Amino acid sequence: MSENPEKPSVSDFRPEARSPRGFADKRAREIAIERRLIATVSKVYEDFGFEALQTPAFEYADALGKFLPDSDRPNVGVFALQDDPDSEGHGQWMALRYDLTAPLARFAAQNWETLAKPFRRYAFGPVWRNEKPGPGRLREFMQCDADTVGSDRPEADAEVVALGVAGFAAAGVPAQMRINNRKLLNGLLTGLGVVESGQQMGVLRAIDKLDRLGLDGVRLLLGKGRKDESGAFTKGAELSDAAIQPVLDFVAAAQGASSRAEVLDRLGQVLANSPEGQAGLEDLSRISTALTAMGVSEDGAIFDPSIVRGLEYYTGAVFEAELLLETRDDKGELVRFGSVGGGGRYDDLVARFTGERTPATGFSFGVSRLAAALALAETQGAVRGPIVIINFSEADMGDYFRLAAEIRAAGLAAEVYLGRSGMKAQMKYADRRMSPAAVMIGGDELANGTVTIKDLDLGREMAMQISDNKQWREGRPGQVTLPRAEAINHLKSIVESH
Amino acid sequence: MSENPEKPSVSDFRPEARSPRGFADKRAREIAIERRLIATVSKVYEDFGFEALQTPAFEYADALGKFLPDSDRPNVGVFALQDDPDSEGHGQWMALRYDLTAPLARFAAQNWETLAKPFRRYAFGPVWRNEKPGPGRLREFMQCDADTVGSDRPEADAEVVALGVAGFAAAGVPAQMRINNRKLLNGLLTGLGVVESGQQMGVLRAIDKLDRLGLDGVRLLLGKGRKDESGAFTKGAELSDAAIQPVLDFVAAAQGASSRAEVLDRLGQVLANSPEGQAGLEDLSRISTALTAMGVSEDGAIFDPSIVRGLEYYTGAVFEAELLLETRDDKGELVRFGSVGGGGRYDDLVARFTGERTPATGFSFGVSRLAAALALAETQGAVRGPIVIINFSEADMGDYFRLAAEIRAAGLAAEVYLGRSGMKAQMKYADRRMSPAAVMIGGDELANGTVTIKDLDLGREMAMQISDNKQWREGRPGQVTLPRAEAINHLKSIVESH
Repeated sequence: MSENPEKPSVSDFRPEARSPRGFADKRAREIAIERRLIATVSKVYEDFGFEALQTPAFEYADALGKFLPDSDRPNVGVFALQDDPDSEGHGQWMALRYDLTAPLARFAAQNWETLAKPFRRYAFGPVWRNEKPGPGRLREFMQCDADTVGSDRPEADAEVVALGVAGFAAAGVPAQMRINNRKLLNGLLTGLGVVESGQQMGVLRAIDKLDRLGLDGVRLLLGKGRKDESGAFTKGAELSDAAIQPVLDFVAAAQGASSRAEVLDRLGQVLANSPEGQAGLEDLSRISTALTAMGVSEDGAIFDPSIVRGLEYYTGAVFEAELLLETRDDKGELVRFGSVGGGGRYDDLVARFTGERTPATGFSFGVSRLAAALALAETQGAVRGPIVIINFSEADMGDYFRLAAEIRAAGLAAEVYLGRSGMKAQMKYADRRMSPAAVMIGGDELANGTVTIKDLDLGREMAMQISDNKQWREGRPGQVTLPRAEAINHLKSIVESH
Repeated sequence: MSENPEKPSVSDFRPEARSPRGFADKRAREIAIERRLIATVSKVYEDFGFEALQTPAFEYADALGKFLPDSDRPNVGVFALQDDPDSEGHGQWMALRYDLTAPLARFAAQNWETLAKPFRRYAFGPVWRNEKPGPGRLREFMQCDADTVGSDRPEADAEVVALGVAGFAAAGVPAQMRINNRKLLNGLLTGLGVVESGQQMGVLRAIDKLDRLGLDGVRLLLGKGRKDESGAFTKGAELSDAAIQPVLDFVAAAQGASSRAEVLDRLGQVLANSPEGQAGLEDLSRISTALTAMGVSEDGAIFDPSIVRGLEYYTGAVFEAELLLETRDDKGELVRFGSVGGGGRYDDLVARFTGERTPATGFSFGVSRLAAALALAETQGAVRGPIVIINFSEADMGDYFRLAAEIRAAGLAAEVYLGRSGMKAQMKYADRRMSPAAVMIGGDELANGTVTIKDLDLGREMAMQISDNKQWREGRPGQVTLPRAEAINHLKSIVESH
């Protein structure tokens, strides 16, 4: 009994069983897809000479900074809390990492003197963002990154693009890498006299609408502005008419181009008078040469000056991976996944700590988004369960466990049913676990030194073909009784045949 | 320039590069050990029929509860924060999971109707404890758990003990499982009239000192109390003289016993008049029978009534895994690792949500502790790096990248050096990465269609044998120049020979 009638006692209080909003449980099938992706991509990263690094979930808030890639908002939410004020932590604020790049910058700055340089590391793990969750938008998700710190060569950019391409290929995911360089747009706008940062942002926002509004929509947004179907007016960047056409030519340079060289040729004309633009093109040209040497096709990685996301964050090349998979949801409707990875060159992140510019470039694989896409796209069903040994009698459990151990020793998964339900419920349990087979050792079997094995996959197949349920049950399809010494081989043949 | 001279501008502020106290970075070797452990143990769990489940890092604080196993303190620290008060989260408190069991209880309660039962899941991942860090005591560490929810059978306890044993064996770690059951001590104390909870706690604390103080020390702590070498006095449980001897007989039952059955015999005498104690012995007897049927040796899992840790938390059987590995630190001093896993039966955890008692039992593998032990015990050195292609000339990088891609296609890791240092530094880089070989394609090689390959492992070996450094360098040990078409096979032979 509680002493205070207004306050329930601990044993009376029943919390609701639910996970926090924006956080989700993962079951076996989704986990299997995600693990396979991570193992595959990690192998590619290692093949490219990147070594594993794992930083903790928390960083001190000052070390983490508050700048996110792929976000217009500089103050985007992190999960932060204060360390115990009375402790050696002196009440410092800590925050969960929102990506794997900021912790890498901290690590590199902390250990710079002792690292073999360039420092090439890959990492995977969850990251956390304190944002409003939505469909397909969780507050915890997996990333898998590879970064090179300490090389200013464009070939280092090319390499992380190539390993993105190799990663998607190894994972069997059709994707395309799209590459841009902020020097191009910087050079173009400087050349056109567009130097005010508000106006530059307006141009970025206009370009970002290309996919949705086409060149005509972008033209309006570069000028006075655009009225949409609802009548709502979006103010434009207010470029002069003379400035709008070069920007449109720039943005459209990738359209219909059949090779990276062709895009560079077109951009070369638009940027003919811009030294910064030419420097950007020279970088891209070297990236293209290196990509070709690494065996990356013209389709696998293209240049696209309309890529805008991340331009504010990165200091040079920018990469975005687009999923080319056509995925459909439960209702058969097409799901657009869009970007499933990205990266770029960030030469300022380590300098936040050291004051010294440290060239760095990297790529981040959007594991959770890709896993979700593959879960929709794959026809593969539930993960296989173990062989289930039916539990008839407490007295015979030693026999059940001995057989289960033998089956496992032969390399197959097996369990003895440990609930208290009857035969029918046990069979249903084995079926729900997607078990390949159920094994029965009843009184007859024990007396005769035999086991009865039911092939559950065969049962499932036949259940779909035979409409007469009674006929099916009486036929006991795929069920055989055989000497116990033959049990393992028979179970192996069942598992291997499916 | 900053507008406010007292406040540094963002670009002037240099945070210190350090990870939060109690959190550590992991490098490649430690990661490799931890991954191998997790993969090995996961495979064992799957072989036993447990399916993967992954719950999020956060739970609502009310769902998590605040009771930890292996801790005397009911209010032990979690990392908690409040969700955005203006959001749909309504400012609810969230906390990072401190183990994998509490989230399982929440998941099981939430999905009970739709689960195939008994529900058997395994999970691995980091857990977080907001405690004072110390040597070998981090605030973030890995666990790997297997639990059966929905079986009250002692055989379910036996099974998680068996999979602990199988997990340690598969990981190549010598460990022993020690099993106790709180019904035994409950029964003993009730029979002796020791029913007041404060006195019961005193008995638990006394028993917990057996390893350190021996039976004589425990005898004093069961009675009036004990004065240690420094003269400090620890108050005892104040049992009567008549009660002390049975408790000592109970605690010593495992000493010198050669089988589980022998321990049970001895305990049977001490607990002859206790119905609860007899029920506990009956459970242990069935656990022993099942363990034997599963092939678990008498050494692999023993009964030990002196195991106290977790007795307050668990509701029935309690398991503790002790590492038998002798590990030494950098200075050659013996490191005691003690418990590297534990578990038990907890029938009340799901009932917190549902009000219905739900039998559950599980085992948790202490991955981080084990990985630390293996890191000390293993002679294995650094993780191998990639084959490094020396970078002589920007103009020839296409050749370097083509060869790197060919090497990777042949299944070996390779990279082109992408820094800007000279030949000597590049060789040092390859050596620090523990690369098996360096490849040189200089002017001569390009003109002649050859490559020069240096076997770095051989170089490292010879460097240890030859004292005359000049002689060694001039001899160019393990360095050959050969036609480019033969490069891959030569590299393969180098990698395979070490």
